[in-house]
Amino acid sequence: MVVVDVLNKKRLGKELSYQELDFIFNGYLNGTVKDYQMSALLMAICINGMSDEEIFALTKIFIDSGDILDFGDAGIIVDKHSTGGIGDKTTLVIAPIVASCGVPVVKMSGRGLGYTGGTIDKLESIPGFNVNLTDEKVKSQLKKIGVSISSQTANLTPIDKVIYALRDVTATVSSIPLVASSIMSKKIAGGADKILIDIKVGKGALLKNREEAKKLADLMVKIGSFYQREVRTVISDMNTPLGYCTGNSLEVLEAIEILKGRQYGTVLSDLCIDLASEMVSMGKEISKQDAKIMVLESLNKGRAYEKFLELVKAQGGHLEKMKVSKKTQRIKAPIDGVIKKIDALAVGKLSIELGAGRKTKEDKVDHTVGIKLNKLIGDKVKKGDILAILYVNDKIDLDNIETIFTIGE
Amino acid sequence: MVVVDVLNKKRLGKELSYQELDFIFNGYLNGTVKDYQMSALLMAICINGMSDEEIFALTKIFIDSGDILDFGDAGIIVDKHSTGGIGDKTTLVIAPIVASCGVPVVKMSGRGLGYTGGTIDKLESIPGFNVNLTDEKVKSQLKKIGVSISSQTANLTPIDKVIYALRDVTATVSSIPLVASSIMSKKIAGGADKILIDIKVGKGALLKNREEAKKLADLMVKIGSFYQREVRTVISDMNTPLGYCTGNSLEVLEAIEILKGRQYGTVLSDLCIDLASEMVSMGKEISKQDAKIMVLESLNKGRAYEKFLELVKAQGGHLEKMKVSKKTQRIKAPIDGVIKKIDALAVGKLSIELGAGRKTKEDKVDHTVGIKLNKLIGDKVKKGDILAILYVNDKIDLDNIETIFTIGE
Repeated sequence: MVVVDVLNKKRLGKELSYQELDFIFNGYLNGTVKDYQMSALLMAICINGMSDEEIFALTKIFIDSGDILDFGDAGIIVDKHSTGGIGDKTTLVIAPIVASCGVPVVKMSGRGLGYTGGTIDKLESIPGFNVNLTDEKVKSQLKKIGVSISSQTANLTPIDKVIYALRDVTATVSSIPLVASSIMSKKIAGGADKILIDIKVGKGALLKNREEAKKLADLMVKIGSFYQREVRTVISDMNTPLGYCTGNSLEVLEAIEILKGRQYGTVLSDLCIDLASEMVSMGKEISKQDAKIMVLESLNKGRAYEKFLELVKAQGGHLEKMKVSKKTQRIKAPIDGVIKKIDALAVGKLSIELGAGRKTKEDKVDHTVGIKLNKLIGDKVKKGDILAILYVNDKIDLDNIETIFTIGE
Repeated sequence: MVVVDVLNKKRLGKELSYQELDFIFNGYLNGTVKDYQMSALLMAICINGMSDEEIFALTKIFIDSGDILDFGDAGIIVDKHSTGGIGDKTTLVIAPIVASCGVPVVKMSGRGLGYTGGTIDKLESIPGFNVNLTDEKVKSQLKKIGVSISSQTANLTPIDKVIYALRDVTATVSSIPLVASSIMSKKIAGGADKILIDIKVGKGALLKNREEAKKLADLMVKIGSFYQREVRTVISDMNTPLGYCTGNSLEVLEAIEILKGRQYGTVLSDLCIDLASEMVSMGKEISKQDAKIMVLESLNKGRAYEKFLELVKAQGGHLEKMKVSKKTQRIKAPIDGVIKKIDALAVGKLSIELGAGRKTKEDKVDHTVGIKLNKLIGDKVKKGDILAILYVNDKIDLDNIETIFTIGE
């Protein structure tokens, strides 16, 4: 097989065989296919698309390139994945809820890069919290308390990892076949029996419209069914940041508020309950309605919060030592009116500016900084009202930040 | 400007501005744009195409990236370019004919790579022939005898050069906008006032069908008219090798046969007369019919051959010292019948196998080897008749070569 011939085929919009995809993608991992050849193929895939058969094949090639986890008799493992959103701390809330309902949760999460934060960074704002668990520790903790959240230690889908880095710098990220096979391969290799995907749509997300999100959702369900994995999808808004807080410590504290039942009826708390109910429904094989009753009961009776405390303790964290920066700045309303929009992307960018996220992989995260919105969409405000509090390290020039709030009549 | 944003735009099929193209292509030359980014853009261009404005802009960017030659008051410089064919020695025939008709010819040619030979390699089979002329020598020779054929010494279109190397290994060669801007920029930077393009179509050529060739022809005329250069195009067949001979010495000897009027009425001699007539018509601004009369007269009266001898002498060549390998092998007809097809690509591959061409840029060329067809299409043959003579260095296994001749009823 010759690399250029395979590239040519995809350039002309023809279907590649399993053998051809395997030759190119494994060739890239072991260096016989060059990055400039792979990027040309990725661009051709972005523009000409992939057939279902090609997507199934690529998913398998990704899975087979690394370790495949198996949690044996731990029960039905339900995993959740979010395509990434600003202020998205749902995992911190959902994992304890679902575990408290008796459904095992093994969550492997990543660090943040770009405008969206990562669950692992958020958990590390709890002093002592150990995110690096061995496979044995994950299994024993699963047996003991039914839940763990850790950094990925196994060598899962290494091809996907190198491809992802290349996509990032070659404008080939927004490809539904590539996104779907990337996510699904990681979840399947990670040992998930059932998978819930939270697809974010809007200004602060990879996908900008619902049609694309629907396509991605359908494709992931198809891949799941090909690999005998039940897949459910939720499409949720990412024009507005999720909840009040962005920034690591602040998001953990907000998650705790929800687990304690102190924040309810918000977009964030509703989404957490919805996702948790889907997971419990899948794990227990009961209706979503019945699952939702269990979820609400667990929250109301404090069992979800108890489970969160167990999780933190099992992984060595000390909640009482968490810190939020004492230096603050305030964004105030310039006019009277009603909050019409809160720009998720602008919040994400500001959050990175403050030091809560990374611009490059090498950057260090400051866990104590972040943004707390004081007003949400629909709130009436008077000129001079505090719209948001920024927890900062170095004072920043508020005149130079992008507009976050749109105030209308 | 951000590289990924420009790539994204082309991925979505949008038009790039002059500034964006300039940023990316010059960025590639100076190393700020990486090869994996450029190859992704090239693939997007191959699939999504380019507008006329983009093509004009890219041509200008190529031209401006290097030297631009100017032959001052030497007269109207008419250049000829062929998109590459097997056995194509037309330049060796045409340049002396056109010069003998009083139209100045400054030909800068390349070496062969892949299945098609290069004019410079062919000329180097004449012992002593100097292909490396300085600009001064080109100009003085132009004044004295009106013709020179040399290797490109000036730094013409360096961006095109690096892009071409990348296209070759990323399946992005067959893009009409990229082919057109590459050829036209080189010809314009090389000082051509008028340009004749011989577009080859068929199995042994880059372009496989006449529709594509027509598109390329129209586009090059458009680019020419944008840059005030008269461009004419000829579309000619490349399913069958051009003439009887392939291989460096053999092709020079065949060119001499035509210049001496000993080969006429063949596809090759007809094409040479046609192309020469176009060039004389352009250079003298006379009708093609009148030009053809001049061309035939020059051939018949021996003036074309005289000019060829002047050219060889001016550049130090010794025709009498030319060598063809004494070791030969014969391909014989396996059955009685009529020659229906002679496969140009198979001849090109065999020619490389014999050592007449290069597989990689580093390979050395053997000037003495090659293939001489003994029969052309339409010829009747009897079993055992000699179809071709191979001039070889090391004997090759004739059973292992691709079928060249198709014999039918």
